[in-house]
Amino acid sequence: MTNATGLRVGVVGCGYWGSKHIRVLHSLESVATIAVIDPNPDRALQLSRNYPALEAYKNLDEALPHVDAVIIATPPSTHKPLALKAIAAGRHVMVEKPLATNAADAREMIAAAEARGVVLMVGHTFEYHSAVWQLREMVQKRELGDLYYLDTARLNLGLYQNDCNVLFDLAPHDVSILNFVLGATPVSVQCWSSHHAHQLEDVGYLRLHYKDPDITANVHVSWLDPCKVRRVTMVGSQKMVIFNDLESEERIKIHDKGVSQAPQLGEDLTQPPMSYRYGDVVSPHLVMNEPLLVEDEHFADCVLSGMVPLTGGANGLAVVEVLEAAQLSAAQGREVLLEEVRGSKVVLAEPAMAPQATAVLSNGSAPIGDLR
Amino acid sequence: MTNATGLRVGVVGCGYWGSKHIRVLHSLESVATIAVIDPNPDRALQLSRNYPALEAYKNLDEALPHVDAVIIATPPSTHKPLALKAIAAGRHVMVEKPLATNAADAREMIAAAEARGVVLMVGHTFEYHSAVWQLREMVQKRELGDLYYLDTARLNLGLYQNDCNVLFDLAPHDVSILNFVLGATPVSVQCWSSHHAHQLEDVGYLRLHYKDPDITANVHVSWLDPCKVRRVTMVGSQKMVIFNDLESEERIKIHDKGVSQAPQLGEDLTQPPMSYRYGDVVSPHLVMNEPLLVEDEHFADCVLSGMVPLTGGANGLAVVEVLEAAQLSAAQGREVLLEEVRGSKVVLAEPAMAPQATAVLSNGSAPIGDLR
Amino acid sequence: MTNATGLRVGVVGCGYWGSKHIRVLHSLESVATIAVIDPNPDRALQLSRNYPALEAYKNLDEALPHVDAVIIATPPSTHKPLALKAIAAGRHVMVEKPLATNAADAREMIAAAEARGVVLMVGHTFEYHSAVWQLREMVQKRELGDLYYLDTARLNLGLYQNDCNVLFDLAPHDVSILNFVLGATPVSVQCWSSHHAHQLEDVGYLRLHYKDPDITANVHVSWLDPCKVRRVTMVGSQKMVIFNDLESEERIKIHDKGVSQAPQLGEDLTQPPMSYRYGDVVSPHLVMNEPLLVEDEHFADCVLSGMVPLTGGANGLAVVEVLEAAQLSAAQGREVLLEEVRGSKVVLAEPAMAPQATAVLSNGSAPIGDLR
Amino acid sequence: MTNATGLRVGVVGCGYWGSKHIRVLHSLESVATIAVIDPNPDRALQLSRNYPALEAYKNLDEALPHVDAVIIATPPSTHKPLALKAIAAGRHVMVEKPLATNAADAREMIAAAEARGVVLMVGHTFEYHSAVWQLREMVQKRELGDLYYLDTARLNLGLYQNDCNVLFDLAPHDVSILNFVLGATPVSVQCWSSHHAHQLEDVGYLRLHYKDPDITANVHVSWLDPCKVRRVTMVGSQKMVIFNDLESEERIKIHDKGVSQAPQLGEDLTQPPMSYRYGDVVSPHLVMNEPLLVEDEHFADCVLSGMVPLTGGANGLAVVEVLEAAQLSAAQGREVLLEEVRGSKVVLAEPAMAPQATAVLSNGSAPIGDLR
Repeated sequence: MTNATGLRVGVVGCGYWGSKHIRVLHSLESVATIAVIDPNPDRALQLSRNYPALEAYKNLDEALPHVDAVIIATPPSTHKPLALKAIAAGRHVMVEKPLATNAADAREMIAAAEARGVVLMVGHTFEYHSAVWQLREMVQKRELGDLYYLDTARLNLGLYQNDCNVLFDLAPHDVSILNFVLGATPVSVQCWSSHHAHQLEDVGYLRLHYKDPDITANVHVSWLDPCKVRRVTMVGSQKMVIFNDLESEERIKIHDKGVSQAPQLGEDLTQPPMSYRYGDVVSPHLVMNEPLLVEDEHFADCVLSGMVPLTGGANGLAVVEVLEAAQLSAAQGREVLLEEVRGSKVVLAEPAMAPQATAVLSNGSAPIGDLR
Repeated sequence: MTNATGLRVGVVGCGYWGSKHIRVLHSLESVATIAVIDPNPDRALQLSRNYPALEAYKNLDEALPHVDAVIIATPPSTHKPLALKAIAAGRHVMVEKPLATNAADAREMIAAAEARGVVLMVGHTFEYHSAVWQLREMVQKRELGDLYYLDTARLNLGLYQNDCNVLFDLAPHDVSILNFVLGATPVSVQCWSSHHAHQLEDVGYLRLHYKDPDITANVHVSWLDPCKVRRVTMVGSQKMVIFNDLESEERIKIHDKGVSQAPQLGEDLTQPPMSYRYGDVVSPHLVMNEPLLVEDEHFADCVLSGMVPLTGGANGLAVVEVLEAAQLSAAQGREVLLEEVRGSKVVLAEPAMAPQATAVLSNGSAPIGDLR
Repeated sequence: MTNATGLRVGVVGCGYWGSKHIRVLHSLESVATIAVIDPNPDRALQLSRNYPALEAYKNLDEALPHVDAVIIATPPSTHKPLALKAIAAGRHVMVEKPLATNAADAREMIAAAEARGVVLMVGHTFEYHSAVWQLREMVQKRELGDLYYLDTARLNLGLYQNDCNVLFDLAPHDVSILNFVLGATPVSVQCWSSHHAHQLEDVGYLRLHYKDPDITANVHVSWLDPCKVRRVTMVGSQKMVIFNDLESEERIKIHDKGVSQAPQLGEDLTQPPMSYRYGDVVSPHLVMNEPLLVEDEHFADCVLSGMVPLTGGANGLAVVEVLEAAQLSAAQGREVLLEEVRGSKVVLAEPAMAPQATAVLSNGSAPIGDLR
Repeated sequence: MTNATGLRVGVVGCGYWGSKHIRVLHSLESVATIAVIDPNPDRALQLSRNYPALEAYKNLDEALPHVDAVIIATPPSTHKPLALKAIAAGRHVMVEKPLATNAADAREMIAAAEARGVVLMVGHTFEYHSAVWQLREMVQKRELGDLYYLDTARLNLGLYQNDCNVLFDLAPHDVSILNFVLGATPVSVQCWSSHHAHQLEDVGYLRLHYKDPDITANVHVSWLDPCKVRRVTMVGSQKMVIFNDLESEERIKIHDKGVSQAPQLGEDLTQPPMSYRYGDVVSPHLVMNEPLLVEDEHFADCVLSGMVPLTGGANGLAVVEVLEAAQLSAAQGREVLLEEVRGSKVVLAEPAMAPQATAVLSNGSAPIGDLR
């Protein structure tokens, strides 16, 4: 489907995140032409100052004849209709996270792509991040001993979204990291969330229970925090690791320390119950390639070679199911099993979605904007 | 009851924390003699190297005739029997946090002290910390605008306790800070906890709901984290504050920034939903006195003057009720109303208490040791 | 001289720093066409992937007919011949720091530009940095009380240059900041330097003496340090300021503290000689525009309007004179007066220049490369 | 000379630093009695609240009959007369750094101690610090490859001294660390210093040249800086190390990275001249004992066993010679050879000493106070 000289890629939505895709696509040898697809002419104009060869289209319909593949970087509520349209036209699709705003939509997208035989990939950027690969390797090789638990924090005075809450905006990163590092998906989820400066939730705490390995993982996301935090903590019986994505030099720190129960001393409460072990701290050198570049290159490779993407539709669905379960948990104040959100079409009346989102979608035009 | 030259104070339990009391008491003009009460002769010996005038007693019974007041710094499960014994002898009592291991015990201690007319104080050190006073003042004067939420973290590769979990060991600090800063107690509690390196919980997340003001506060405590964290975050509509107790120079940082909903722009999803405001960061200069010193001086003042302590028995009970509710929430996976733990004697079969704790208590001798 | 639609700008040398100019020039409304001038075809090719409208020329001679102004971002030893050639052709010139590798060359360039009536500007980026403007304002308004001294550090495992040492590579930034902030130039210079991993100096310490105000300023530069440091400290009698350019949030911290002599207490050595004052720490919010963008826009404005640049040739010469004096001081182990390097053509046999630099220049072709 | 039960130690001067010695001496098994010797009765009183068994004397004459050894922690200008008096009485002496305020005095003290057969030790605390031992070991085992240079910084809004400048107050620590780590003493010294808030120098930069190994070391000391800094940087061809004494967890960081000259590429200035190597960062776990405790224990051991102290008089003299040479360099603006200060009695008219210091000493009484 690609022309002789390479892939023709369209980016739908050229806000903050879409324009990063456009920058990155320019570095890829396999990409021949790049199109920006955005109803806002100012955005296209501004981008074409820097990239005069950019093609520009007002909407996806106009663009489809001129592209082989599209990257959808629009507000989450528009992911499904845009993706389905591109798939129907036989175009390969990468959708920014979250793949969809509920599991039923995600399943519909997967089914459509399978039926039409095109690539459907989700933009879980952190699965293309060399630090996250290192975390995964440490877990898979059991370098931390018995893995005890994980804890993540993604905080900031953040970019609020119009059509989704902080769970659907920020937590996809953490859930995708956790699933990837553990090589598993959770069996149940608990969630606390609240909204303060907006009608959609802007602070959330999730707790994911994995069965194999038997691990709990805690996720803290916030659009409403004075300090930027991007941190993953993994605690094992032998070692403990912190991945701080804001550090430029020592992103990963492996603490060779731990605690174990002291030999039983009878009933002497005056003795400390544990013995402690302290060792070196090591920050392994990481060769960093920009994760978005790795991701987009992988998407192009999959399109050209027919290879199955590392973060395909099923991967995106797994994350959306967790988010949907989290939302249900927050609404009902109880732990939610993942299987509860698996049988159903739509479990939730989507309380996280603002009314205007539906309105926009119902008139069929594709609103396009920032994603992060 | 004090002798002419000043107060005679006994410290029961001279482990890590008890020996700090002994150091601090030496600086108080109002204290005439200090006694260490610990069955472990090595500890008393080691302390008396530094403090040769220290009196030493093997147990509380022996010490009682020689002291006017006692500070109980033993494992939590021993707080109640030791305090009741001292109260029964007409001695004033300060109990380290938590006041007791369940609310019923705390109530019994309060009633006993009232009946006997002695001071009962709880060692909520942070309520004597000038940074916490500043947090309280900012909230009371509404300097943050509308207060949105609070979040605290108290993490470390910490000192495990023999007879209580991390909730009862570390969270008392945070709950006491929150109650003090907000001038209120929560109406309900949610809790997630887990144990990894020990049979007692070593990682916990609490969520406290206050009604007036209508605030949620989140508490993260861990004995099993590679990095030491001591942090309180307060987020308001006008300002956001971080109190980092590990900083020596800039413990409190006030961020003059915020976010508010942008004027309604119809249904244009491409417009950012919020407007952001960024301003200066200010670290007010704090005059720091060691909180434990301020606390112990206040205890001595209360004993000598009959003044009611700032952190009296009721204050200690309020914290214990929250912990008991948290424990119940973790066990039952649901939100627990504080009123549920108020009517009852003992709600819980005390799953947080290790078997040996009961054994030790049943033989009537007072085990004595570290507290933190 | 500019065409109707805007300025035609050529960037000579499209290595690390030159390609930043190319990126930034794309954002300027007043710039119509941009040309890259580099003998290395790979570099031009790589840039034109991202910027397909870029014109490319192999050398300055070929480019001159097609540009109104040039930015010279080549190794320092080539600044003079390239600038003189562009000036002779009536083109406006911005030269990256340092303006030249000795004061005599800088004077020759200034004289040529004046004679030909074109703009000669030097790329002292930090004079276009809003944090540096704030430092200058604090000094000019005497907000620090009596200014005592300044200290700067610019360290890293840095990008070694082929044709100049660390003094000429990194110290221009600090000297330009100091001259700008103080509104003065030093009267004398001391310098220690050494070379370790290269035949050119890679570590240097400078001490600049200003007369009005009467201030010493210390500059530490290194290409050979494990940690990146970009720091300016200003100490006054009332306040002390740190500008840390690596901080994204709190680049400037104003410490409201100080020390002053205690009232004379006779000859009692046991009394502390000073009284100390401690106050708040304030990080003022800075509106940050990329300094290079501000600089390039200013260059374009000067070219179009005939305005005199803020960092014109004389400004660049003042910095080069300090560097030349520093080099002389290091060689002779003594303090060097600035007037010593002012009367002369070339004071130094340029020991900082590697032999090949001369060789390259003598064959008349313009070697082009990285600058930083 | 010691009595049966252990050593009797007197501490002369019980200010900030002297009282630390008193605390530490209480932990030593080999010390039987401790005396505080200070003309200020309030200080002795305050200490005896905490240490009721402390003996107290108003001056050294009164104390000498009751002690076997003395630790002199008084202002530097009083070190010599106090030490000579104690030595003359046959008492062992540890003198806080600097051993004396000029090399001639230091030599006189050494000669006196040798003649009388008593221990003379200097309190170079950092030579008893396990992090410094590790630095020394890395250098001695050549783990950094070729050692290139060292750089130290000791900054703060510091405790000004009455009778000595910042060079004699703070730099002894750095010079002692450097001599110890390199296993050598410098052959020449350069120094820049200035005074701002006091008539004595409060900011200084030293440059020490060692011959074997052939190393330069730079020392920055300041009493007048907004931020506390305690840092040693060692740069080698293979590794680079930072020792940050303010870190509690990762005091030493070993950066396995470096730079070396790239293979000669002819005269192509466009090629980078160096090749860079990046590797892990390791913070080795250090077992920390309080250095002052290790030091005082070593002093007691030397007194009891006749062992020669690690930091004996000659070690103290070596540091004082460097300081004296530094002072001369600052005064004369030139590099000073160490041999210049070796032949002489007193090279300098002691410009660093305030007039009152001499006055105090001339009346024969021992002024006593803070040291740091």
